[in-house]
Formats: sequence, structure tokens, C-alpha cells
Amino acid sequence: LHLNPFLLYLAYFTSLSFTGFWVLRGLKPRTSSFRPKDIDFFFTSVSAVTVSSMSTVEMEIFSNTQLIVMTILMFLGGEIFVSMASLHFRNSKWKKFLKIQDEAVSSNIELGMVSSNSKPPSSENILDLGILFHTQSDKSLPNNNDFLMYSSLRLLVLVILGYLIVVHVLGVAFVSLYLALVSSASHVLKNKGLKMFTFSVFTTVSTFASCGFVSTNENMIVFSKNSGLLMILIPQVLLGNTLFPSCLRFSIWVLGKMFKKEETNYLLSNTSEIGYLHLLPTQHSSFLVFTVFGFILVQWVMFCSMEWNSEQLIGLNSYQKLVGGFFESVNSRHTGETIVDISTISQAILVLFVVMMYLPPYTSFLPIKDGERDSQVLFVRRKRRGKIVENLLFSQLSYLAIFVILVCLTERGKMKEDPLNFNVLNIVVEVISAYGNVGFTTGYSCKRQVNPDGSCQDKFFGFAGKWSNEGKILLIIVMFFGRLKQFNMDGGKAWKLL
Amino acid sequence: LHLNPFLLYLAYFTSLSFTGFWVLRGLKPRTSSFRPKDIDFFFTSVSAVTVSSMSTVEMEIFSNTQLIVMTILMFLGGEIFVSMASLHFRNSKWKKFLKIQDEAVSSNIELGMVSSNSKPPSSENILDLGILFHTQSDKSLPNNNDFLMYSSLRLLVLVILGYLIVVHVLGVAFVSLYLALVSSASHVLKNKGLKMFTFSVFTTVSTFASCGFVSTNENMIVFSKNSGLLMILIPQVLLGNTLFPSCLRFSIWVLGKMFKKEETNYLLSNTSEIGYLHLLPTQHSSFLVFTVFGFILVQWVMFCSMEWNSEQLIGLNSYQKLVGGFFESVNSRHTGETIVDISTISQAILVLFVVMMYLPPYTSFLPIKDGERDSQVLFVRRKRRGKIVENLLFSQLSYLAIFVILVCLTERGKMKEDPLNFNVLNIVVEVISAYGNVGFTTGYSCKRQVNPDGSCQDKFFGFAGKWSNEGKILLIIVMFFGRLKQFNMDGGKAWKLL
Ligand SMILES: [K+]
Ligand SMILES: [K+]
Repeated sequence: LHLNPFLLYLAYFTSLSFTGFWVLRGLKPRTSSFRPKDIDFFFTSVSAVTVSSMSTVEMEIFSNTQLIVMTILMFLGGEIFVSMASLHFRNSKWKKFLKIQDEAVSSNIELGMVSSNSKPPSSENILDLGILFHTQSDKSLPNNNDFLMYSSLRLLVLVILGYLIVVHVLGVAFVSLYLALVSSASHVLKNKGLKMFTFSVFTTVSTFASCGFVSTNENMIVFSKNSGLLMILIPQVLLGNTLFPSCLRFSIWVLGKMFKKEETNYLLSNTSEIGYLHLLPTQHSSFLVFTVFGFILVQWVMFCSMEWNSEQLIGLNSYQKLVGGFFESVNSRHTGETIVDISTISQAILVLFVVMMYLPPYTSFLPIKDGERDSQVLFVRRKRRGKIVENLLFSQLSYLAIFVILVCLTERGKMKEDPLNFNVLNIVVEVISAYGNVGFTTGYSCKRQVNPDGSCQDKFFGFAGKWSNEGKILLIIVMFFGRLKQFNMDGGKAWKLL
Repeated sequence: LHLNPFLLYLAYFTSLSFTGFWVLRGLKPRTSSFRPKDIDFFFTSVSAVTVSSMSTVEMEIFSNTQLIVMTILMFLGGEIFVSMASLHFRNSKWKKFLKIQDEAVSSNIELGMVSSNSKPPSSENILDLGILFHTQSDKSLPNNNDFLMYSSLRLLVLVILGYLIVVHVLGVAFVSLYLALVSSASHVLKNKGLKMFTFSVFTTVSTFASCGFVSTNENMIVFSKNSGLLMILIPQVLLGNTLFPSCLRFSIWVLGKMFKKEETNYLLSNTSEIGYLHLLPTQHSSFLVFTVFGFILVQWVMFCSMEWNSEQLIGLNSYQKLVGGFFESVNSRHTGETIVDISTISQAILVLFVVMMYLPPYTSFLPIKDGERDSQVLFVRRKRRGKIVENLLFSQLSYLAIFVILVCLTERGKMKEDPLNFNVLNIVVEVISAYGNVGFTTGYSCKRQVNPDGSCQDKFFGFAGKWSNEGKILLIIVMFFGRLKQFNMDGGKAWKLL
């Protein structure tokens, strides 16, 4: 069975989105007075599955059951879970292969026959399921290395599973504890009629999966003074996203100090053979940490220096401002929870956020040594596709430019009438936010209308909520495109900029 | 003498800019009532030298003498002239080398001595002066190939010189003829008190050098109905910019059909040994033509379909609209003459123009064959720089994002007060336009002020004219950066996006 990994991923996310849409629509919303349109249910489902947290309806319209469904969607759509599942899937193929070969040897079946029937799980159908994996497909007998590979991969799956469980359990425990201890936070939830435990689980899953949905309308703005809660969420954001490769490597290393020496050594020193996208070589892992904190520092300094005295942060003390700024800087890649209204922050920071949202999670400064390693990875990826497809693919930025232009076309009427809300920057923020699966949005503000419309009411949903259906569909495509971007990071090779 | 080609280029453009500034400031402007500030003189000089045509003052304030000075600046700053000059400079080194070696052979001087004193002009000090050039520096005697190389290069210089002269003479002749025949165009100039011949020369030089300055305040808007004039300028835009490599190759090929067979064959088949940036291999040259016309077609279709009934084009007949749209599409890369007010065109087209302005002139679709050729070029370029420098360089887009953020910072006050004029899109258009040395600008409009200011008067200069001095200085840096972009097209190699 040779399945194209891209199609496999696409089928998984699409079917999950449709299932989510169908279930969410079937359940009763919290109030019977307002019922979202079908497209908004679908948008929300896609947004949860692709961990984007873009919204076209307010969060508080969802009932407790709907929130639980969304929690499941976010968990199943999270990159760490998906990559673990595909690793497990690949591993079960290895198991089958080793078993067959074992039987073959023990019953002395002719080698030629065996080798033609069962090859080691080839790289073609698992490559890029978060996995770049080389095997010599002409060998016919499993050797010691194969068994070590198998047991190492099994260990890797177990480590990731343990990682998932530990972070989630600790997250839920800490958030629940915080809510139990700090009345100002639990008070907010009581007023809104939200269940404490659902909130804890929802927020933890959402944060760790880098989704960024929060079950309050105001996202984290309403908790901007609860620095403790922000401090609990910050590590979860980092552990579940930009720092995952470094933490995974560290976990394996710690495990190796205690037991399973052979497997952990194999895992740590053969990252390219293993080809798990989230397990990087030592040097890359450490530079990643520097890069992540470097980016956070730049944003933090800029945010604090520009927004220190802004209206948004009035009422916060210096400590709360510092924690809030840090939270915001961490969230621009790619969780997208926010303690301020994005549309009111300084335009310079907004541009910086756009850059940060665009950069993929494991963007890292990596000094050039011999220029061989990365070209090797590219070469492996390139080989997979036919020349024709290769030539037709554009680069990521070209696609994004095309999407922005298309949205400008679908919303062109509103761009003329309502130029302060419907401007290109806000559209770019929305598109890049969807592409980066972030969820930052400038929203829509009645105050910004140049020709005030008496019936306009400010709502707590994303800017896309005010778009036409065509615009929303475009954004749904962008979210999928962003979630599957790992398959096109080398697009546009046939274009020469000179 | 081993000069860093980047520094050589930088010194050339800087000294030319300062000379231009000094001369322009010394000359009397047309009216004594208004005198531009020093920064605006410098800005204009830089804009002419880097062929950007960004403006912070209206063009009609310049006297005839000042226009002539600007013509010279544009001519000396044009890429074709500069690359021809550097090719000639390199060729004179070859001549010296061949002469010395010749004498060495005839007077039987010891070979060892000769070879240590005079090497063939090495690639290090001429590389990237529009030139990627390989020689084996350990040979000590000129061979036949060296002589052929020398005579081919000499021929190449002559061909470029001929090309320059023919296009300029024809251009001036055609524009003058048009003005003599069509009274509506010459009437405009008479009313403005502009000299016909100066206008012809200025416009021709400006168009062919891809500068895009026009001596009228309104740029080409005032000639939007003069389709004939636009039709004369369109080929000059293309011949002097995006299509230059293809036309140069064609000229050499035609020349080879008549005489100088050996040299033209050498030129046509050894493009990488010759390493002249504007002489591309056959396949690249032909794909470049397709790409250029593909881009024009996309813009043309979009411009005509979106702007056909716009206010701007009212009063033009269908033929004039088609020619005007074509002219606009050709000018977005990178000449920047315009027949409409850029700020009033549809935002979708504006985004498309931003992309087009960003793409360097010889951007080309080039199907992947074996992936060797371009990596070779990259390798050559990379070798030149030290590892440390290499690691510190960012990609072009990163620098542009930084410049946009910096301008947002310097203009942050105005961005709050005057959000329809000072919005991020307009700043991005201005910065990318300066980077691409285009000259498109959204300008500044009193009508767009949200809080109208009674004393505001609409002026015919670029948006940058309303910026603070810091903003203008940033834009001057961006123009230089854009003009010298050929030295950093491979920046950001030390960053891995994963
Ligand atoms: K997110
Ligand atoms: K220009």
C-alpha cells in the first residue's frame, strides 16, 4: 500500500474537520437566540483541527458539550499527536516486516521470494509524515540494526506519549489549582457560566496543541492581570511548539542516563536515519533554543517599550505588564492567545508580529559549516516529486501573496466603504495568521468605521467574521495550506530570482 | 590592487550621489519662491543615481540646467552603463596582462618571476561587478584562449556601447518626432515652460535607464491619452531592463551571422566563463522573455478588468485604456512611470504591484533539469565571503521587514493621526518601490485625511515627501540597498526555516 503522505495528511484533516463540523452543528449552542451559520460551524471546526484558533463567531455561544468536542478536535489536530500517531503507524509496519523476515529465516523459504514480497517499510510512503527516512530497500534480511531501529522507534513513540501525558496532566492540575486559589480568575468564569474543569482541560489542550482557543469571548484579555495563569501557560506554549524538539531530545538524553542506553544513543545520534521531523541533531536543537528566546526577547523589548503606557495596559502594574508582554511575545509563534486587542497595538509591532507568525516554528539560526547537511535533506525531499510537479509549485510567499490578492478581490466593496477596518494590513495579518496557524486577528471595530453605521455592534470574533463567505472559504483553504506547509517548504525551486 | 567589488560599487554610487547633490544644490531652481531643503536635494540626487525616481519635491521646480544634470546622473547610474564600464575596466586589465606576458615571452624573462608579478585579472576583484568570472590563476603564459577571451570581451563592450547609442538616438528621435507631430503633447510642455529637446533626452535616458523620472509634475498621467508616446516608451522600458539580456544575446547572435564569428560564438557559448551578469545562457534568455511577458499579461488583464470603469480612466477610449494598462504593467518592473495615481487603483492590484516591484528584473521561470547549474553559481558567490559575514547576513525580505518596521517607528505619530495616508500598505509600497528602484508611490492626499487640516495642499511628490527626515534617510538607505542588491541575493543562508 503506497499512499502519498500529503494526501494521507489532507484526508485526515479534512475528514476530521467534516466530522467536527457535523458534530458541532448537531449539538445545541448555549443560547437558543443565536445560531451560527453552517459556514461558521465549518470554519470553527477547521480552525480547531488545524490548531489555528481563527474565529468567525464568539466563543461563549458554544455549550459545554461543544467545548468538549472542540477540545477533542484540537487534541487530534495537534502536530505532536499527529506526528506520534504516524510514527506509531510506521513502526507497526516495521514490526510486520521484522516478523515476516524472521519467519522466513526460520522456515528456510527461498530468499528471493521473501525479498520480493516484503521490503522494509520504504521511505516513499512514510516520508514527510513528519518523517525523513532512508532504508536500503534491496536487502532482504533483517539485521541487528533493523531490530535496534525498531526498538528505538518504539521507545521514541513511548517517550512522546509520556511527554504528552505529563504535560497535559500537569497543565490541567496547575490551571485547576490556580482557579481554586485565585478568586479573581474563577470569578470571571462563574460570571460567564463556564465550568471550571472544562475550562482547565480546554485551555491546557488548546495551549499545548498551539491552538489558542480560549472559551471566553475576550480570549486571555480578561485574564491580563492574572500573571500567575499566564506564567502557567507560557511553558505549555513553548513545550508544545517551538521548544518541543529541544525538550524531546533532552527527555531522551535524561532517559538514557537512567536506562535503555542503546536505544537512546541510537535515537540521539541517528536523527537523519530516523527522520522524525521533531527530532533534530544536537547543534540544531541548541541553536533552536537560542533562536526562540532571541525572537521572544526582540518582541518583548519592543512590545514593552512601545506599549508600556498604552491604553490597553492601563491598570496593570509593572510586573503584570512584563509578564503580559512576555506572554504576547511567546504567543505570536504560533499559539495566538492574546492579552491585548491586536488592532490597537502599534503598527510597527504588528509588522513584527506578521514576520513572526510567518516564520515556521523551528526557524533557527544555524551557522554554515560545509553546506552539505541541509542540501542533503532538500535533495531527499526533492527526489520524491516528479519534475513537472516540482516545476509548477510556487514558493510559500507567492501563494500567500495570491491569497491576499484574492481576499482583496472578494472584499473589494468593503475595502472602499470601510477603509480603516478593511485595509490591506488587516487582511495580511488575517491571512498570515491563518497560514501560520496562529490566530491573531485585528478584529472589527465599529469605532474605526469612516462612515459610522448606527446598527453596528462590536463583537468578540475575528476580522474574518465580517468577511464574505468567499473570503471565509479562502481563509479555510489558507488554514489547511498552513497546516500542511511542511510538504511545500521547498516550493518555487523552478524560479530564479536574479 | 584587490578591491572589494561591493565597496567599489558603493563608493561609485555614493560619490556620484554627493556630486549630484552638490551640483543640483548649487544651481538655481526654476522659481526663486520655493527652495528645496538640502535633504530633498540629496534625496533627489540619490533617487536619480540609483534610478529609483522616488521624489520628495515636485519635478517642475527644477530648472532646465538641473534637469540636464539629472539626465547625466541617471545615465551614469543606469545598470547597463555601469556594467559596461566595469566590463571595460576589467578588459583593460586583461590587455595589460596579455601585453606583459607577451613581452615576457619575447625577452625570455624567467617564467617564475613573471607569473608571480602578473597574474591574469583574477576573479576576486571583478567578481560581482556584474561579472562572475573564473580563471586558473596558476598559469603564467597567455594561450590562444586568453586572446580569444580578451577579444570577445572587447567585442562585448562594443556591442553594449552600440546598443546604448542606437536605443538612445532612436528614442530621442522618436520622442522629438512625436512632439513635433502631435500638438496635444507639445502643448502640455509649452504650458509648463519645458524645453522640447530637454524633455526628449531626459525622458529617453530616464526610461532606458529604468529611472522613470519625468520632468512634468504629474509624471505620465498628463500624457495618458497620448498612446503614441506611451508606445514609443514601452520598448525602451523593456530594452533597458527586463529584456536586456535577451536582446543583448540576440544582437550578438545577429552580429555573428554577419562577421566576427569566432568571438560571437565564444560569447554565446561561454556565458558562465565570461560571467557578465547580463549575458545569460540560451535557455535562460528565452524563458526570461516568457516570464516577462507572462507577468505583464497577468498585470494587464487584472488592471484592465479592475480599472476599466474607474474614475482615473474616464475620458479615455478603449484603445487608450488598453495601451495605458499595458504601459502601467510594463512600468511596475522597474521603471515606475505611471499614467494613473497609484493611490486610487484597486488594493488588489496594488498588492500585485508590490510583488512585481519586489521581484528582481531577471526573475525567470527556469525548469529544473539537474539542479546543478544554479547551485554552481551560488557556490561561486558563496566562496567569496568569509563564513562569519555569511552567517550574519539576512535575506532580502528580512532587511525589508526591518526597514518597514523602522519607518513605522519614525512615522508613528502620523500613523495615528492620519491613518488613511500613513498606513502600513502605503509605507510598504514606498519601501518596496525604493528597494526595487521603481518609483511608484501612493503619494499623499489631503482628501484622505481623517481629521481634515485646512492648510493642507495636494502636491505632486511621492509619499516620502511627507515623511520625517529620519524616514527620508531610511528610504535613501533602502534605495542604495536596492541598487546594490545583486551583492546580497544569497543572504540569509544561515537561517533554516523548518
Ligand atoms: K494557534
Ligand atoms: K525606477
